Amino acid sequence: MKAPTGLYFEDLEIGLAKESEHHVDEAAVALFADASGDHNPLHLDAEYATTTQFGERIAHGMLSAAYISALLGTEMPGAGSIYLGQTLKFRAPVKLGDTVTARVEVIALDAEKNRATIATTCRVGETVVVKGEALILVPSRS
Amino acid sequence: MKAPTGLYFEDLEIGLAKESEHHVDEAAVALFADASGDHNPLHLDAEYATTTQFGERIAHGMLSAAYISALLGTEMPGAGSIYLGQTLKFRAPVKLGDTVTARVEVIALDAEKNRATIATTCRVGETVVVKGEALILVPSRS
Repeated sequence: MKAPTGLYFEDLEIGLAKESEHHVDEAAVALFADASGDHNPLHLDAEYATTTQFGERIAHGMLSAAYISALLGTEMPGAGSIYLGQTLKFRAPVKLGDTVTARVEVIALDAEKNRATIATTCRVGETVVVKGEALILVPSRS
Repeated sequence: MKAPTGLYFEDLEIGLAKESEHHVDEAAVALFADASGDHNPLHLDAEYATTTQFGERIAHGMLSAAYISALLGTEMPGAGSIYLGQTLKFRAPVKLGDTVTARVEVIALDAEKNRATIATTCRVGETVVVKGEALILVPSRS
């Protein structure tokens, strides 16, 4: 027997949305570098970063994607749902010290397959830094 | 002045590929849970996981994506390149104890825009667990 603790397909409707905020500091970037194995100096070496077009260290793009994934996996639809796919466009850098707001919003529902298409964005202030869509298989009550 | 330490656009050719291996153990999953904030019990709670369709704990799908990102950011094309986009299809679960092989392979080059399209996959043995494509802006020598 499945034991989802999140939302069921029947709980979802177009426009349903959730947000989470994440302060991207030195520790957050260092932890993601260790978790991913991505020690690209653009993220970790302040001196190197000044020589790049960004002029300073930026966070891993996939860190913002991880915040999206966390929001999907723990809030909406939450535990019990299955992550089928994700598209990501990295539109702007996240700098150390920025606060990232992740947002997930239901934009399509396929009742035959119990699949939800969810618009996924990360913003820093008004700037969209990551944009994409998730496809999720959501458990049904029936 | 930009200071990439990775490959230049001129170094790339169709078929060029790199792989990395990652042992996905308890520590790797716990670290990714902390880095992402995703404490979904499917990844962390062995008892809960037995009640799901997977029958045991599985790793976060985005952890495999993080390995892809790390390979792109540190090996091919490496530092100096800009991650523009990524598509991900989560095809099969990664279980604790599995070894994930991430692979990136150049499949298209746009010399006008210095953009590379890179096929990105993660496998466990012969099973493709994650499949997708990355779009990367790669610095030019000229």
